[in-house]
Amino acid sequence: MHPLSPLLNPNSIAVLGASPRAEALGNTVIRNLQRIGYAGAIYPVHPGAPEVLGIPAYANLDDIPGSVDCAVIALSYDKALPALEALNARGVRNAVLYASGFAETGAEGAALQEELTRYCNQNGINLCGPNCLGLYSVASRVSLYSAALPENLRPGGLALLSHSGSACIALSNLDRLGFSHLVSLGNGAVTDIADYLDYVAQDEHTTVAALFIETLRDPEKFAVAARKMRAAGKPVVALKVGRSSSGAAASAAHTGALATPDTALQAFFHRLGVVLVEDYDELIETCVLFLGNDRKPKSNGVAVLNVSGGELALTCDIAERVGLTLPDLAPATVNLLREILPPFGAPRNPLDATGVAVFDIDMYGACLRALLADPAISLVAISQDCPSTLGKDQAATYRRLVQAVAKVNADAAKPIVFFNNISDTIHPAVLEPLNEASVPSLCGMRNALRAIGHLIDHHAHAEVKHTSVGHLRDEQWAERLASGLPFTERESKAFLADHGIAVTREQLATNADDAASAAKRLGFPVVLKIDSEDIPHKTEVGGVVLNLASEAEVATAFDDLIARVRKHMPQAHINGALVQQQIDKGIEAIVGIATHKPFGPGVLVGSGGVLVELVKDATFDIAPVTTRDASSMIARTRLADLTRGFRGATPADREALAELVSRLSEVAIVYADELDAMDLNPVSVQPIGKGAIVLDALIIPKADNKTPSATNIEEAQT
Amino acid sequence: MHPLSPLLNPNSIAVLGASPRAEALGNTVIRNLQRIGYAGAIYPVHPGAPEVLGIPAYANLDDIPGSVDCAVIALSYDKALPALEALNARGVRNAVLYASGFAETGAEGAALQEELTRYCNQNGINLCGPNCLGLYSVASRVSLYSAALPENLRPGGLALLSHSGSACIALSNLDRLGFSHLVSLGNGAVTDIADYLDYVAQDEHTTVAALFIETLRDPEKFAVAARKMRAAGKPVVALKVGRSSSGAAASAAHTGALATPDTALQAFFHRLGVVLVEDYDELIETCVLFLGNDRKPKSNGVAVLNVSGGELALTCDIAERVGLTLPDLAPATVNLLREILPPFGAPRNPLDATGVAVFDIDMYGACLRALLADPAISLVAISQDCPSTLGKDQAATYRRLVQAVAKVNADAAKPIVFFNNISDTIHPAVLEPLNEASVPSLCGMRNALRAIGHLIDHHAHAEVKHTSVGHLRDEQWAERLASGLPFTERESKAFLADHGIAVTREQLATNADDAASAAKRLGFPVVLKIDSEDIPHKTEVGGVVLNLASEAEVATAFDDLIARVRKHMPQAHINGALVQQQIDKGIEAIVGIATHKPFGPGVLVGSGGVLVELVKDATFDIAPVTTRDASSMIARTRLADLTRGFRGATPADREALAELVSRLSEVAIVYADELDAMDLNPVSVQPIGKGAIVLDALIIPKADNKTPSATNIEEAQT
Repeated sequence: MHPLSPLLNPNSIAVLGASPRAEALGNTVIRNLQRIGYAGAIYPVHPGAPEVLGIPAYANLDDIPGSVDCAVIALSYDKALPALEALNARGVRNAVLYASGFAETGAEGAALQEELTRYCNQNGINLCGPNCLGLYSVASRVSLYSAALPENLRPGGLALLSHSGSACIALSNLDRLGFSHLVSLGNGAVTDIADYLDYVAQDEHTTVAALFIETLRDPEKFAVAARKMRAAGKPVVALKVGRSSSGAAASAAHTGALATPDTALQAFFHRLGVVLVEDYDELIETCVLFLGNDRKPKSNGVAVLNVSGGELALTCDIAERVGLTLPDLAPATVNLLREILPPFGAPRNPLDATGVAVFDIDMYGACLRALLADPAISLVAISQDCPSTLGKDQAATYRRLVQAVAKVNADAAKPIVFFNNISDTIHPAVLEPLNEASVPSLCGMRNALRAIGHLIDHHAHAEVKHTSVGHLRDEQWAERLASGLPFTERESKAFLADHGIAVTREQLATNADDAASAAKRLGFPVVLKIDSEDIPHKTEVGGVVLNLASEAEVATAFDDLIARVRKHMPQAHINGALVQQQIDKGIEAIVGIATHKPFGPGVLVGSGGVLVELVKDATFDIAPVTTRDASSMIARTRLADLTRGFRGATPADREALAELVSRLSEVAIVYADELDAMDLNPVSVQPIGKGAIVLDALIIPKADNKTPSATNIEEAQT
Repeated sequence: MHPLSPLLNPNSIAVLGASPRAEALGNTVIRNLQRIGYAGAIYPVHPGAPEVLGIPAYANLDDIPGSVDCAVIALSYDKALPALEALNARGVRNAVLYASGFAETGAEGAALQEELTRYCNQNGINLCGPNCLGLYSVASRVSLYSAALPENLRPGGLALLSHSGSACIALSNLDRLGFSHLVSLGNGAVTDIADYLDYVAQDEHTTVAALFIETLRDPEKFAVAARKMRAAGKPVVALKVGRSSSGAAASAAHTGALATPDTALQAFFHRLGVVLVEDYDELIETCVLFLGNDRKPKSNGVAVLNVSGGELALTCDIAERVGLTLPDLAPATVNLLREILPPFGAPRNPLDATGVAVFDIDMYGACLRALLADPAISLVAISQDCPSTLGKDQAATYRRLVQAVAKVNADAAKPIVFFNNISDTIHPAVLEPLNEASVPSLCGMRNALRAIGHLIDHHAHAEVKHTSVGHLRDEQWAERLASGLPFTERESKAFLADHGIAVTREQLATNADDAASAAKRLGFPVVLKIDSEDIPHKTEVGGVVLNLASEAEVATAFDDLIARVRKHMPQAHINGALVQQQIDKGIEAIVGIATHKPFGPGVLVGSGGVLVELVKDATFDIAPVTTRDASSMIARTRLADLTRGFRGATPADREALAELVSRLSEVAIVYADELDAMDLNPVSVQPIGKGAIVLDALIIPKADNKTPSATNIEEAQT
């Protein structure tokens, strides 16, 4: 039995807050239970009343004769904790708390909520709420719901898990969706969306979960539940709100600035195969499709069939905008359609069956069969205009068309989806044959095409397993990071080199002679860079000299460099100067590590060097990433073009870059506790076979005052 | 009287194709006329029948006793031209032709259509069609419509002008829109959307026009009509289909590749203040808002009021995505709201009136009034969830809320707009008070917010008047362009210099001594570039040498250059080498001219040099553009950041760049007949006050075989 079963399917319920006053909140809960014919025991609790709504009431919990699986606390916020204590004493470990007055109201409420959380966790109490509408398990006829139950709620396979009560009301009142569970969980102080998702993954009545998420609190727990959903073949559709908030500002380094929390959220959901939607409409259409379709598209090829050329042009526009693939038809299909269509028809995808289809329904059906038979097509979408206010005659015409669709659907193996081009309720005369034939019917061209895209992605998704990387950890470096002291470029590169990442060859010199002989060993030309923990902005103090071509030049430059820097920053402790191999830039990339709460560390890759701020061309994914993941990250940036051999340049070693990104993601994992961010910029991607070499690097350990502030890090990279 | 009046409001109609056969197309037209109570004369024309549908019929046109304003040709395509000839002979100069079988079917049909067009234009016949449903002038009760008239069509201010008949059926069946005119004009062979738009601009029944456009044929005529609409205060909302088609490939030069026809379309509509929408839903909500609102928003500040925190977070996300501004509230408003809201409420925009609002309607109304009074707010949007399947109790609750809105609306000066967060028909109990109070009610958060954005943009739009630039034309250069021969870099720059655009100082040298002394005059360092009409790809043949720092270097380099090039291209005619001032690159921009049919020439500006292909960062506008237009074009590219002084660089002369773009747009206009494209890349934007200097340029005259092919032009720029 799942730990939340007694909360969602209790055999007996105590109602704290039942009352002789008709309008008491507890009474609404009881009325809801009565209305849906709850089969278990209801125990109203009231100090004085002998009965409530015809049910014997009890003065206190101990008077209740039988066992109590669950309780609803229909009391004000200040009575919540005493009530939980009483319930705990009576051995009741499942409860719903409706009251507001907690974290959503400010610091005082937050403190009260923390107390609740602590108490429940200590005593193993599953609490739903506070600040919620509660629960409704439709199939098992249990409701612990404080608002009037949706009058028109239709039973079905959708579990709605929502932080927002409004979203629960809005969606549960749509008769296009059929529900297994409504969970309005409010502040999620004890049990949160991840817990309920874990429950519905094993719930026999649920086939799809819709989530309305205000905050994603525990990504690890969420990931476990999402993976269970996937293993059970149940899609998860999530509407996450607050994605535009400017939380990104908190993160340091370029990597932080580029990888906003929203990109991290997207990466997280993408990896788990959770469908992220942008608004209610897209959520609804996507859920309608997942609930109504049980055929698996085998590729991403979609065909669209309509009887209007103009509307199909619009379909092309929107398909392109939402990233849907409408492939060309196979020659055999084209030939077949040429025979089927009237002479002026054009056999292509999307397919205009022409106005003749309205009179020649068989021709229309034959078009649909031809599309379904095409090997490049894995799903056929039928589009038509059928708003609820459509005239009778027109509706009758379209009804005949969808009847033909219904007939073809009966023995089709590929999914067939109908959509109304307009987001209006579909006319009942058109809807009826579709419903009878179990053809999913969607509203609005844009959302329908997005939903179809989600269906295809869902079936194409496969999560990659990652191997353990613990052996990469070096305790000496971990200690160095834990000190929180800033890293010099030299130290950063030593760290990288020790973890198998190629860096420029270089050597610290403390005098001009050493510098000259180091340069000779490294090979000319070389670069000189001041080496000092106190100087993160090397260029600004004249601390970098390029293009040194001889021992003499190096020796002179060394003395000049030291003198110049001392003049600028007399108080700085100078270790000397780094003599560095000067490498042809190749293609410049940026690779980095950033951590975005509440997710773990992630990696970033994109166009580097001067392009970082200019192009803002980077992709982010949560660590670890395989080299294949990294390769597809690179493919989403302009590095794809650049490394291919831009403007006649030699193609660059993209594979080496992907390996570097993957390796860095492993480093990010094993030092997650000590490392805040890392910035390798530029990484020079050399011609194929020559590798990817880090030219400059900055490592930022966690939480230390000496770390350059976020705004300065950009400059520190010069 | 408008030239199209007899077509749209005829006093007498001849029906060719009326018949004793009940199902004849002409009879549908007559039945429609009868159904709506057409007040004029109907003359069925049939060789044998004495009457059709109770109306006396005539064997031929000459038998008709009275005058005939207009005729419908309900005959097959092959009878169209003879019918037009007969009508013309009878003096009938307005007709509707429904038949398909013309340009939409292929070359043969296109030829037939061209014949029609020619005949009608020669004889001054206004023909609607072919391949159309025809016309319905709702207010004057005239329909020349070949399909059943929409049963539920609601009269109102919207004129729908559509190439697509399906779009006409789809939209006219929506009872949320009220119509003045339906025009399904099919192929638009004689009268097109621009003609009808010109008509409805002066039509007293029309307040808004909705366009479904498959092809924009005559932009100049369209612009004239659109300007009349604007002058009359009537918004135009356009859905253009086929925007994703790959027509861009046809255009040469970077400018062509970057400025796709769709960007030209957007620029064209934007300039005219025509609202460009992306799909039916956005079209519908935008029209509902324009039709239902008569208050002018005075700024772009929008406030949103709801009773759910979670949904308002979603509203913020979507507002940001669609570019809507939700400004902070003034301190006075915040203070006022603090008094109005319950203690745990947060006085901000968007505003959550909290769940208490449901019980305290006065509080809710006071919130709305407070938002309306804020100086930064020019429009208040009320959002709520009210799908048609909402339960009775919930609907009653929301009805009370909108009743409060209706009450406030009565004496409000700023627009108030209601929207259902979900794209579902609004529950009638909620809709009714809104309709009674004339508060526009929209469906779907995304489309509602987009519609509100369009309303704001519409009122903020002001078209800039351009002055004449004819004096810029130099007939000698016009002749040179008209020759169609390719321009060398030297010639291109001479052209630019003659038109007031700064280019690098340079001189042609024919021997080493000349080159050396030219270099001395120009100042070191200089660049040498081979000068030959036959060598568009200078770099590939070793035809460019940089960094020449002395007379001796120049002389040697000259001889080497000539020898190298001769070896590579022995057959090329070499004029010599261009000795060119070598300028510090500054910020590199690309500026260009491109012409996109059916629009006139336009200009493009964006990040230049190596960034062109990499960043694809350019904006396009139709010529001419003022320096202010050009400035805002630059502001939409990354040049905005770059010229501001990127990474500590000196701020660059953005003003000079804007002047260059504006000047080039004037050049584009005056040589529109001779010039195909122009590519200035890079343009070096020097520090402020130092100007913008063209470092390299390529001018492509119209239509000449010797012009480098589109695929080669990129390389020609190196």
